[in-house]
Amino acid sequence: MRIGGYEFEEFLEVVRNFHGSPAPGIIVGGIMVDMARDALPPDTIFDAVVETPKCLPDAVQLLTLCTVGNSWLKIVNLGRYALTFYDKYTGQGVRVFVDPVKLEKWDEIKGWILKLKPKQEQDFERLMHQIRTAGRDILTARPMQVDMDQLTRKKMSSIAVCPICNEPYPADDGAACRGCHGDSPYI
Amino acid sequence: MRIGGYEFEEFLEVVRNFHGSPAPGIIVGGIMVDMARDALPPDTIFDAVVETPKCLPDAVQLLTLCTVGNSWLKIVNLGRYALTFYDKYTGQGVRVFVDPVKLEKWDEIKGWILKLKPKQEQDFERLMHQIRTAGRDILTARPMQVDMDQLTRKKMSSIAVCPICNEPYPADDGAACRGCHGDSPYI
Ligand SMILES: [Zn+2]
Ligand SMILES: [Zn+2]
Repeated sequence: MRIGGYEFEEFLEVVRNFHGSPAPGIIVGGIMVDMARDALPPDTIFDAVVETPKCLPDAVQLLTLCTVGNSWLKIVNLGRYALTFYDKYTGQGVRVFVDPVKLEKWDEIKGWILKLKPKQEQDFERLMHQIRTAGRDILTARPMQVDMDQLTRKKMSSIAVCPICNEPYPADDGAACRGCHGDSPYI
Repeated sequence: MRIGGYEFEEFLEVVRNFHGSPAPGIIVGGIMVDMARDALPPDTIFDAVVETPKCLPDAVQLLTLCTVGNSWLKIVNLGRYALTFYDKYTGQGVRVFVDPVKLEKWDEIKGWILKLKPKQEQDFERLMHQIRTAGRDILTARPMQVDMDQLTRKKMSSIAVCPICNEPYPADDGAACRGCHGDSPYI
């Protein structure tokens, strides 16, 4: 099996270097990326949505030009292991998700996805073997229309300097920056 | 100038391959990453927060093991071009930000950060040259204590299968998944 043009083992290494470990979620994610891409008309200029912040964003970032920082990848946390690639201009695309019905044949994958047993009881080698063998067999792809209004990042109008922290911030945020409005994660 | 162990030109190429273009924001971001890391005690196991989703997450993801998908990188959108690296266990760390006071010497960088002129009037070559020459000269680093309670990702309790879409989702989200609760970005 190849993932995104890489040999399987080679992809594990790419994942390890980026993500810190060869997490099964990213391997499944890589297979999802390939499936979504194959389902789009060739040469489609696409953006991506992932429906969870866990693992899946890294598969997309590693295998496409859609990243969080360039905003071609959007994360909408719906708690589902699913991604949608869609035409940047029309919003027409394809959604790929892990299909529970199809997990019946793959007990280790099923146990992992549905968290049926504690992590220390999972058999990692067996899980990776099943993921590699199953490939797209655990996934379903469906056409999907994205609501572009909801996903398009608003353009910043102008930049102000915050009178409290003295740092630049989007003027639309109000008289002070959001950090000084109490949204800061610092103590 | 080197960035994250890369030669400057080499880093531009790495950025281009990941982000799609050698965006100035990621170059500045790379310099911020190096500065934050140097300010931490050596061998600190750190997590990262960025205060904007624009560009900066990609610099962190390219140059550290903190990614969105492994959750060692958190994005808290405060609209400020700043990042904090902090000890994973104590929350103690360092925040690096673009310091407007220090921009006075660098008119092209100032114009770009504060959006003083429209994009088509910016001189890209001049901007990149100033960024490369200025290096850390436009940045300030300060000690920072992160509120760990706010930034620690909650552990999922258990997984249910949604009665509406038939997909797995975190049981804590309620009787149906968030996608079926109307949070979906699809039409
Ligand atoms: Zn402020
Ligand atoms: Zn649902």
